[in-house]
Amino acid sequence: MSITLKASYFSAYTPETSSFHENSLIEVNDCGYITKIVHQATPEYNAHLTAAQQHDQLIILAPGHFLLPGFIDLHNHAPQWPQAGIALDRPLADWLNHYTFPLEARYKNLDFATLVYHDLITEMLANGTTTALYFGTIHNAANLRLAEICAQAGQRAFIGSVAMDNPQQTPDYYRDASAEIAVTKTQIFIQTIQDNYPSGLIQPVITPRFIPSCTTATLQRLGQLAKELQITVQTHCSESDWEHDYVRERFGHTDAEMLQSFGLLNQHAVLAHATQLTTEDQTIIKTEQSTIAHCPLSNAYFGNSVLPTRSLMDQGIQVGLGSDIAGGYTPSLYANLQQAVTVSQIRQDGIDDRLPAIERGVPNSRISVKRAFYLATVGGAAGLDIQAGAIEPGLLADFQVVKAPPHLMSLTPDEQLEQLLFRHTKQQIKAVYVQGKLVHEKEHNWYE
Amino acid sequence: MSITLKASYFSAYTPETSSFHENSLIEVNDCGYITKIVHQATPEYNAHLTAAQQHDQLIILAPGHFLLPGFIDLHNHAPQWPQAGIALDRPLADWLNHYTFPLEARYKNLDFATLVYHDLITEMLANGTTTALYFGTIHNAANLRLAEICAQAGQRAFIGSVAMDNPQQTPDYYRDASAEIAVTKTQIFIQTIQDNYPSGLIQPVITPRFIPSCTTATLQRLGQLAKELQITVQTHCSESDWEHDYVRERFGHTDAEMLQSFGLLNQHAVLAHATQLTTEDQTIIKTEQSTIAHCPLSNAYFGNSVLPTRSLMDQGIQVGLGSDIAGGYTPSLYANLQQAVTVSQIRQDGIDDRLPAIERGVPNSRISVKRAFYLATVGGAAGLDIQAGAIEPGLLADFQVVKAPPHLMSLTPDEQLEQLLFRHTKQQIKAVYVQGKLVHEKEHNWYE
Ligand SMILES: [Zn+2]
Ligand SMILES: [Zn+2]
Repeated sequence: MSITLKASYFSAYTPETSSFHENSLIEVNDCGYITKIVHQATPEYNAHLTAAQQHDQLIILAPGHFLLPGFIDLHNHAPQWPQAGIALDRPLADWLNHYTFPLEARYKNLDFATLVYHDLITEMLANGTTTALYFGTIHNAANLRLAEICAQAGQRAFIGSVAMDNPQQTPDYYRDASAEIAVTKTQIFIQTIQDNYPSGLIQPVITPRFIPSCTTATLQRLGQLAKELQITVQTHCSESDWEHDYVRERFGHTDAEMLQSFGLLNQHAVLAHATQLTTEDQTIIKTEQSTIAHCPLSNAYFGNSVLPTRSLMDQGIQVGLGSDIAGGYTPSLYANLQQAVTVSQIRQDGIDDRLPAIERGVPNSRISVKRAFYLATVGGAAGLDIQAGAIEPGLLADFQVVKAPPHLMSLTPDEQLEQLLFRHTKQQIKAVYVQGKLVHEKEHNWYE
Repeated sequence: MSITLKASYFSAYTPETSSFHENSLIEVNDCGYITKIVHQATPEYNAHLTAAQQHDQLIILAPGHFLLPGFIDLHNHAPQWPQAGIALDRPLADWLNHYTFPLEARYKNLDFATLVYHDLITEMLANGTTTALYFGTIHNAANLRLAEICAQAGQRAFIGSVAMDNPQQTPDYYRDASAEIAVTKTQIFIQTIQDNYPSGLIQPVITPRFIPSCTTATLQRLGQLAKELQITVQTHCSESDWEHDYVRERFGHTDAEMLQSFGLLNQHAVLAHATQLTTEDQTIIKTEQSTIAHCPLSNAYFGNSVLPTRSLMDQGIQVGLGSDIAGGYTPSLYANLQQAVTVSQIRQDGIDDRLPAIERGVPNSRISVKRAFYLATVGGAAGLDIQAGAIEPGLLADFQVVKAPPHLMSLTPDEQLEQLLFRHTKQQIKAVYVQGKLVHEKEHNWYE
């Protein structure tokens, strides 16, 4: 059934501007697309309001509530959810071998997968994330279970069956036995998802874990697959000093150069982290029109630097936001967009008080709250090539209804948006829609 | 009435260690002090359990719930609460003149003060903060209202009537008219609080805003007062490049040197931020046994560097944690302890990917989650010289009952603590006690 929301809403427009409209009528059709938005000042407003009321399809947001686009998480290791918040003080290699690989190996057990994935997806929706790009595990049965759980919960999900077959960099208990198996498994997973979810709510992703985990044969063959299928590719790229140096030692080229040579970089590719790119790497990523998933919390722990978000975007490189569960400790993209602004400020001002101010930081690094909002919405949608991320006619009706903090002083719309995003708690997300369908509701007091 | 809590609890012990005990009996007397803790393995356990049951004073935490010490916030501008999350991208001088000073001036209106302070104190308790050190405004009636609201809500509060009388650095609509007025007002406020709250739950604080806001006469006379009264002093110290340079230009000495010369540094002094201290300043603060309030969120926006927390503590300087509402955008000390760990990691690894790894950061900067927990509890208690911050016999019964996230993998106690602190949301704080009295309760399902 089609619905009309009467709501005041914010939507990112450009990286530095967002739109705000009060009490607009947002009309959503049966397929879950926004067909029309009627603003309060227009002559047709009352007619549309009356028609929606007569057809019993009007939902009026209660005072103090706002509609925002749902957030889009461009990097999330679903199986790592149980370890979120643990052992962040370990170096990446330790973290992988002591925690992550043993944990991911447990997803051979479907009961365990069901328990974790159900908990995670519930939590993601409660945090306003309407679309996510997930790494699964090497276990296809568990990956399919993740797809089922997302579909059932109503979250739009891009899911990858993880390919990792390099015996030098993966443990024997958690590894694809050969390139043949890694690639065939990927193909089967893609086919199954496309068969099971013709609506496109769930989509398969080509997912070489990262270069260190994969043999050259696997990387080459997944690159061929990417060229043939033109579907989303996800991997990690220059995510830390260790990883960046590893690839240079193994191949004599950088991570970005090698991913390009394998055919894994194109406009459908999402590269996590990318904190250690060279200038030439940045040019490659720009040329290939790939997207960087900025994971500001995780990068602080494992990235060995702060992503130059502003400079990348100024060059025309696409950037979105990722939680990187569990390198990042929270699935909340609110926390991550706050952190994106905070670390950009730290990059600008520097970290070493013993240096003179002028030598301490990197000028022009700071990003605004609006730009972070853009990353979490429009940036993510562009990375996944979905018609979402904004509240505009023609786009998918992916929304979150957010209650504003108590009204303690009068605010401009810009200030209101900043406070919504920065004084946010999960409790304030009252309802979440994906493609026009209510998929999360905290209480019933958010509409009139 | 005395109570006994049967609870599994964590408490910071040293900066790098915390204690964990399962199902201990924590006995609290009528005055709100912990008198005894009986651990499960001891022979006397059953007798104590039975006695508590018989006297109907036993509170048993439900499974999955843990007791932590209440958090202690060492820096919070209560009147700035309405602007939390707004305009963080402005430089400090702009922020003060366009937002903060006009807002603080509004507290001449007691209705406004009541509205805001009630909302803030409710929020602070809901976030597990049992003690806070507050800046008020120049308006004593509003400061007394803040005291009343804290007392009524049951939060332990240290409150300062703000002294600021320098016409060069304060607006005419929000300034103490003279040093005489600034000091007399401070004296009257101190006397009134001491008369009204003989229990010590609310305590007065000598509060020169910071050197730029004050005339020399006011700084000198408040320094004398600090020597005479030996009560808590709070101010800002070398909080940014601008402020650090301002003091050097005005006096030819650093902020710490001048505060010392005025008599404002002693073991009762809490200095906010301190991100720009010289080595000599650090020695002064150590010698005077003053405490630094580390405000990691606020410092990212206004501090122009990252506090060298680890190095300060290694030198023997006392450090606690502050939210710095509203330079920091959240009253949650959970968010601030997470950020303390995150920025320490960024200080260690650096921010500029164009530099080689070895030149990028400051070695040995990283702090552990346990150390951040120590800052939010033991560090704060030491700064305010209160018998709190840990769960130990002889200390005040200031607690928070926290529900753990769903049990998705088996965790060691250390991992459990990390997850409690990092995967935390406000919703998980189910109950808060100050001095043995229940002051916040989210739902009734946290005890058996
Ligand atoms: Zn990752
Ligand atoms: Zn302050």
